[in-house]
Amino acid sequence: MIRIGLLGAGRIGQTHARAVAALDNVEITAVFDPVDEAAAFVTALTGARQATVSQIMHDDKIDAVIIATPTDLHADQIEQAAQAGKAIFCEKPVDLSAERVRACLKTADKAGVKLMIGFNRRFDQNFSKVREALDAGKVGNVELVQITSRDPSAPPIDYVKRSGGLFRDMMIHDFDMARFLLGEEVVEVSATGSVLTDPAIGEAGDVDTATATLRTASGKIAVITNSRRASYGYDQRVEVHGSKGMASAENMRPTTVVIANEEGYSQDPLLDFFMERYAEAYKSELQTFCAILAGEERSYPSGIDGLKALELADAAVQSLETGKSVKLS
Amino acid sequence: MIRIGLLGAGRIGQTHARAVAALDNVEITAVFDPVDEAAAFVTALTGARQATVSQIMHDDKIDAVIIATPTDLHADQIEQAAQAGKAIFCEKPVDLSAERVRACLKTADKAGVKLMIGFNRRFDQNFSKVREALDAGKVGNVELVQITSRDPSAPPIDYVKRSGGLFRDMMIHDFDMARFLLGEEVVEVSATGSVLTDPAIGEAGDVDTATATLRTASGKIAVITNSRRASYGYDQRVEVHGSKGMASAENMRPTTVVIANEEGYSQDPLLDFFMERYAEAYKSELQTFCAILAGEERSYPSGIDGLKALELADAAVQSLETGKSVKLS
Amino acid sequence: MIRIGLLGAGRIGQTHARAVAALDNVEITAVFDPVDEAAAFVTALTGARQATVSQIMHDDKIDAVIIATPTDLHADQIEQAAQAGKAIFCEKPVDLSAERVRACLKTADKAGVKLMIGFNRRFDQNFSKVREALDAGKVGNVELVQITSRDPSAPPIDYVKRSGGLFRDMMIHDFDMARFLLGEEVVEVSATGSVLTDPAIGEAGDVDTATATLRTASGKIAVITNSRRASYGYDQRVEVHGSKGMASAENMRPTTVVIANEEGYSQDPLLDFFMERYAEAYKSELQTFCAILAGEERSYPSGIDGLKALELADAAVQSLETGKSVKLS
Amino acid sequence: MIRIGLLGAGRIGQTHARAVAALDNVEITAVFDPVDEAAAFVTALTGARQATVSQIMHDDKIDAVIIATPTDLHADQIEQAAQAGKAIFCEKPVDLSAERVRACLKTADKAGVKLMIGFNRRFDQNFSKVREALDAGKVGNVELVQITSRDPSAPPIDYVKRSGGLFRDMMIHDFDMARFLLGEEVVEVSATGSVLTDPAIGEAGDVDTATATLRTASGKIAVITNSRRASYGYDQRVEVHGSKGMASAENMRPTTVVIANEEGYSQDPLLDFFMERYAEAYKSELQTFCAILAGEERSYPSGIDGLKALELADAAVQSLETGKSVKLS
Repeated sequence: MIRIGLLGAGRIGQTHARAVAALDNVEITAVFDPVDEAAAFVTALTGARQATVSQIMHDDKIDAVIIATPTDLHADQIEQAAQAGKAIFCEKPVDLSAERVRACLKTADKAGVKLMIGFNRRFDQNFSKVREALDAGKVGNVELVQITSRDPSAPPIDYVKRSGGLFRDMMIHDFDMARFLLGEEVVEVSATGSVLTDPAIGEAGDVDTATATLRTASGKIAVITNSRRASYGYDQRVEVHGSKGMASAENMRPTTVVIANEEGYSQDPLLDFFMERYAEAYKSELQTFCAILAGEERSYPSGIDGLKALELADAAVQSLETGKSVKLS
Repeated sequence: MIRIGLLGAGRIGQTHARAVAALDNVEITAVFDPVDEAAAFVTALTGARQATVSQIMHDDKIDAVIIATPTDLHADQIEQAAQAGKAIFCEKPVDLSAERVRACLKTADKAGVKLMIGFNRRFDQNFSKVREALDAGKVGNVELVQITSRDPSAPPIDYVKRSGGLFRDMMIHDFDMARFLLGEEVVEVSATGSVLTDPAIGEAGDVDTATATLRTASGKIAVITNSRRASYGYDQRVEVHGSKGMASAENMRPTTVVIANEEGYSQDPLLDFFMERYAEAYKSELQTFCAILAGEERSYPSGIDGLKALELADAAVQSLETGKSVKLS
Repeated sequence: MIRIGLLGAGRIGQTHARAVAALDNVEITAVFDPVDEAAAFVTALTGARQATVSQIMHDDKIDAVIIATPTDLHADQIEQAAQAGKAIFCEKPVDLSAERVRACLKTADKAGVKLMIGFNRRFDQNFSKVREALDAGKVGNVELVQITSRDPSAPPIDYVKRSGGLFRDMMIHDFDMARFLLGEEVVEVSATGSVLTDPAIGEAGDVDTATATLRTASGKIAVITNSRRASYGYDQRVEVHGSKGMASAENMRPTTVVIANEEGYSQDPLLDFFMERYAEAYKSELQTFCAILAGEERSYPSGIDGLKALELADAAVQSLETGKSVKLS
Repeated sequence: MIRIGLLGAGRIGQTHARAVAALDNVEITAVFDPVDEAAAFVTALTGARQATVSQIMHDDKIDAVIIATPTDLHADQIEQAAQAGKAIFCEKPVDLSAERVRACLKTADKAGVKLMIGFNRRFDQNFSKVREALDAGKVGNVELVQITSRDPSAPPIDYVKRSGGLFRDMMIHDFDMARFLLGEEVVEVSATGSVLTDPAIGEAGDVDTATATLRTASGKIAVITNSRRASYGYDQRVEVHGSKGMASAENMRPTTVVIANEEGYSQDPLLDFFMERYAEAYKSELQTFCAILAGEERSYPSGIDGLKALELADAAVQSLETGKSVKLS
């Protein structure tokens, strides 16, 4: 039996708890959340005891932690867990400062613990199938990746202010996806952005509509578009063009129903947001983390992947501000 | 807390046990299966004790039974449960003899117990959404229903022999779906069938490819096609044409991935079979049964619905044999 | 230069004239239509002279006739043309009486002239591509054909009265398509129909919603559904299921535009009616006729095909009236 | 009767000749092409006489010219035609030098003649329908335009060398489309590109895979991706996101046929290239030009539109070379 301590029992922490509960030979042993109701929910669901972060870190029977606390706590908790010799699953981003992330990774590295970052989209059945198609050579050498990612609506302004901005909060998923699909490191980034959906976002120093163009050393290109507005649901698509052809992953809908009348044919809007769209991905992600804990060899998004995505986000912000493309070392 | 006894812990019984386990305020208290491993699986999953049918029927703390045993046991077990005053969920078909079904329903009726039949497709998110569209008047008055239902491959010949034949075993789902979508009772049936996929099916006295045409008193028409062969997956579609337009439910695939190359565009085959395609429907079905047990008013497929579908199957068999359409009283 | 006489210069006659005008080495030499404006239109378009039917039949320089007159004139004109030794393209149906058609074919046969029937749908790029897929073995042995054919709205009652009824006027195209796709002669027909769109159609002795089921000697099945109502455009689809898979031809739309908003995704209605949907088919059909005149070997719908489709329509009418399936000799 | 002189009778000149031939009250009176066969083809098709450029320019009965000669002749011929008082339809680009184009437009302006540029995609039924949807307010205020444009394969290296490069030869169509869909002038351009399909393209000083990002003064963004390689056909798509929703135009295929087997579902590759994909657009374009000649008020791509697209191409080249975004005055 593998024992896991859960730090943070909000919406995403509960999702992870449910995913673990459905697996064999693994359990949530202890849960921490300053909001008692949240922790109690996980307790009721899994039988885990409530505990402080420190108790979890010092419990020798706990093999691993899942960090689903607010972003500004991630880095400290990773370091504590690393020093306590526990394997770590941490929600993205590790931290909003690349320097802090590097320090953090060094600590985890020194401690020799596994660190997996919650880039859940890599586990989406559609995107992972695209990656399988690439690995199987179905599109030949990758040349151009196009990623469209649009939220149904903007988060609250308070969230926007704390988020590190669209590039570090939202597009960071797409930076990771671009790396996942390009199969080669990015060496140059250029980006632009606008405030089109809500002036308050601009007042908070952020943009709500943005695009970034990435290049690798061999000249492969990725283009990402993001918006905080999509009236028709959560728009999440990728397409990868290569020397032999193209692989794309289209959106998902709640049903396959089509209604036709004199105005034409109509279909449902898309699944509304990430908890629905990526429901299976969250399960698959935790299933992978638990498989790793059990000693299986699996590919997973590492701390380095978390760092690289943040570096791309930082470069995009710099490009937005300077109007110049930014080279990465 | 509502307590349920599970009769039969094979594949479908286990599916129902899992569905119940995910619900609040309801539990599988006892489970019967002559195969010890099957019963033990449910015990491990739910904490239910193993018991005999008789023990379950005589346990006053048990409110309801789920009957997932072989078809030839259904009718007896319905009658026992009815006499014991328990609510009943029974897999389709109730029995292969319409007369026996009628007797059974009479017993349940006299006992005043609820009887729900496992026409799981009514709970599929796609088909139920089509029905909602009809109820909302989106296609106007229904005129023509087309149902396509194709299994990936034929069941073992042993199963074919015991099954009551394609019309009573496979198309019975579509007869129920036709009634669900027509919104009016069928008064006339004509059917035809062939042996095209495997001569052994013909030797067993059955067909593997068949079609039935149903008419209601007001002239609405439903056309059903069935086959035991579909190389591209489990093909399950309906379309409903009315005075104002059309509503259809298309198939489901494991992913939304499209690969394009010089040969064209390609997509996954369909979900392979009913356990995948109707996974959500099975959950929703048991969720409805439990809601009914908890006193909620919900529409559900009743014993009468089970009988009507069987009568349509019998009429189809008669039409196949005589080459004449068969009138229903 | 091949010279053609055009009998009938209404909408379909004009379409044929335009198709011929676009081809090399063939011309419309003479045109007959009792409506002077109609004939004059063709004259202006092609330089053809106006002429009587008799003048066309007796003009030795005319190699072939296109018969696009009202149905009740077809048989006589075929016989006149055959006796004059001219190749014949005749719109469907040859006649509403199968006996009359047989006599007609005998005359053409004796005269040794080519007779092509205007089953334009065989030349539709979609349906002909399905047939190519069948010929290439892509679906294996054909088992089940499903044909959906729905007009946007019913023709005028006057037309209905003269039409020979839905089975001989509308479903006759689908009977031909079924034969085209089954690859084997039909030996048994059963049909049903209703009056659902307009009571006046019933008063005229016809139905507006109908279905027919066809069987071949080896047990292949075709199911056809027809309606005189489709608010969303001209609905014309086929699907062919075989031992190895399925080939289908979907509908056509004026554009590929998709609009998405909070209500979902929407697309254009279908192309409105046969002149739009089958525009390319009409051209391809006449192109084939002219290729045959020029001595090329091409497969085309013959007089026998016209007769067979009518016999299926007659059998369907008989089945509708008797409630029994009808065997064909 | 409007009389047109055709300069250049190659593939595109012939297409225009055919389009004019199908219209009433307009004719190709004279045709010039140094290749006698090409000119003779148009003569045979339309009855036009062969003539020199000078003869066409000095023929007072000729109202308008269609310029379909090689690019390096366009500007001179526009100026000659303008000075001769003739309306002008000119294939894109007017010239590869923006300065030369400006001089040219000044001449045409001074002469008061109409000048239409052959941005045929504005006339594509799909893209023009998207524009109609925008004009009808169906997506609200435009925020983000995404344009995907991929040729099936690269042109000959000789052509590449003379073409002015991918941005001026290929993406110029997309720059015009971006302006057509943004509804606001672009003020900033950034671009990148790679040589991925053929090193010879790089040796010729060009790229074969490229992307450009455009911004308007109010912050609207357009992202264009281009490639000289698409194994699955001619890939031409746009999507426009606005405050209320999204409008997209998808690709076109030769048929609607779907084949399903155990490997999944497959469809045709796309229409192969621009002569097929834009066949209707070319007709509609010339029909618009002739309508303008006849005095109708119609919106059309003007000389200014030709200039603006070229300026965007020049800016993209500059951005590619400098790694900086380029501001337009």
